[in-house]
Amino acid sequence: MDTVTSFQYQLIYNAFSFTLAAMAAVTIFLWLSRSQVASAYRTALTISGVVTAIAAYHYFRIFESWHEAYTFKDGVVTSTGVAFNDAYRYVDWLLTVPLLLIELILVMRLSRAETTSKSLSLGIAAALMIVLGYPGEIATDLSTRALWGSLSMLPFLYIVFQLFVGLGKSIKEQPAAAQGLIRTARLVTVASWGFYPIVFFAPFMGLTGGAVETTIQIGYTIADLIAKAGIGILIFLIAVRKSESDTDGGKAYAA
Amino acid sequence: MDTVTSFQYQLIYNAFSFTLAAMAAVTIFLWLSRSQVASAYRTALTISGVVTAIAAYHYFRIFESWHEAYTFKDGVVTSTGVAFNDAYRYVDWLLTVPLLLIELILVMRLSRAETTSKSLSLGIAAALMIVLGYPGEIATDLSTRALWGSLSMLPFLYIVFQLFVGLGKSIKEQPAAAQGLIRTARLVTVASWGFYPIVFFAPFMGLTGGAVETTIQIGYTIADLIAKAGIGILIFLIAVRKSESDTDGGKAYAA
Repeated sequence: MDTVTSFQYQLIYNAFSFTLAAMAAVTIFLWLSRSQVASAYRTALTISGVVTAIAAYHYFRIFESWHEAYTFKDGVVTSTGVAFNDAYRYVDWLLTVPLLLIELILVMRLSRAETTSKSLSLGIAAALMIVLGYPGEIATDLSTRALWGSLSMLPFLYIVFQLFVGLGKSIKEQPAAAQGLIRTARLVTVASWGFYPIVFFAPFMGLTGGAVETTIQIGYTIADLIAKAGIGILIFLIAVRKSESDTDGGKAYAA
Repeated sequence: MDTVTSFQYQLIYNAFSFTLAAMAAVTIFLWLSRSQVASAYRTALTISGVVTAIAAYHYFRIFESWHEAYTFKDGVVTSTGVAFNDAYRYVDWLLTVPLLLIELILVMRLSRAETTSKSLSLGIAAALMIVLGYPGEIATDLSTRALWGSLSMLPFLYIVFQLFVGLGKSIKEQPAAAQGLIRTARLVTVASWGFYPIVFFAPFMGLTGGAVETTIQIGYTIADLIAKAGIGILIFLIAVRKSESDTDGGKAYAA
């Protein structure tokens, strides 16, 4: 277990608690807001809330695991020997990352065939990206970390390509009022996801011990907040704009 | 208590947490999605969500029981002497397996008489299947395990027969848009159920100790995920398709 300073310990501890509260708050907001949008966009809000709910659950577990891994008494942080369980993050991503792509596709309200095929191909690529990253995360040597990290980048690049090229045409067909927001959601998704590999490769930047642990935990936490809570709010805004501009009142169901 | 390696311990630990999160997420999704389908299909979604909610509760208990059965400190797994409670699985199945068959029947929207008779006969057969399997699961010798396992296969085969022959005619009368999905749901149900006896008979394949414990726990967990969360999503998709194709707007209540 890496030794962390009392400042690092408290920073991470409070960041986990902050994120648990933020994810839970966005969850409730999205579920209550379902009645504010047309029927066709409710599934997108439901799933966005499911994503932040799953994240809230895992931040609760991560918080508890951090609490068990150290004692903080009289200003001194001591490792208890109980390992901090990093796997919660990967378990979370395995569930939420495919769903994040599906919520982006659902809010665009494509044809049923396109919704199904894009959800399947992007969902599978996302799951593959997470599964390939995990052996690298738990590896103790840097070369194994580099190998699995690089393999994980392949489905990541496929997803970025699909979001920008594959969905580009569909975005042009969206109502004018929502186009800008959809572009923003796509950009925020890709930008926040780009943050994860940077954090993943932090140990290569010469950081060690408590500094690398802090960079990884705080880095992943900020990325999770933007990619899940931030995107959830954007999906809500897109759904509101599209509900206003749909001439059919959004009655047909897109999924 | 079987000795497990630290890798097996963590794999099972994280698989239980993953399943708890997945079951709870699908529960909320199904309950919120009730407003997206015609009135006639809401009971099917309610029950599908009840099934995953019961499973989420039991995976919480299973997770806690696993946590109590071992200590994991300084990278070493030690058995605490507190037995891991396998009975939670059977208690769960006794409640959820009859309900899984009922949700499949409800989403087909048969006549009221047929709905009642099929629900009763399949529900009772399912309960019998679980009750007969349990003495085999807790038996310490393989011949007792084989005896009760084989008895449990009889109601299992009756259910498979009923799903394929008894419900075959009704499926042909379903709307074209939903027929494929209903066939998929039936196939996924039978295929995922076929997984349980394979796991049950794993100790006969020469596995021992931690390996047999891991095979049983991970095997049952994957089968539960497919049979409950997977089928729940399929039931939602069938309900959406059928809501769109019903000419009466799905007003009549089928249950």
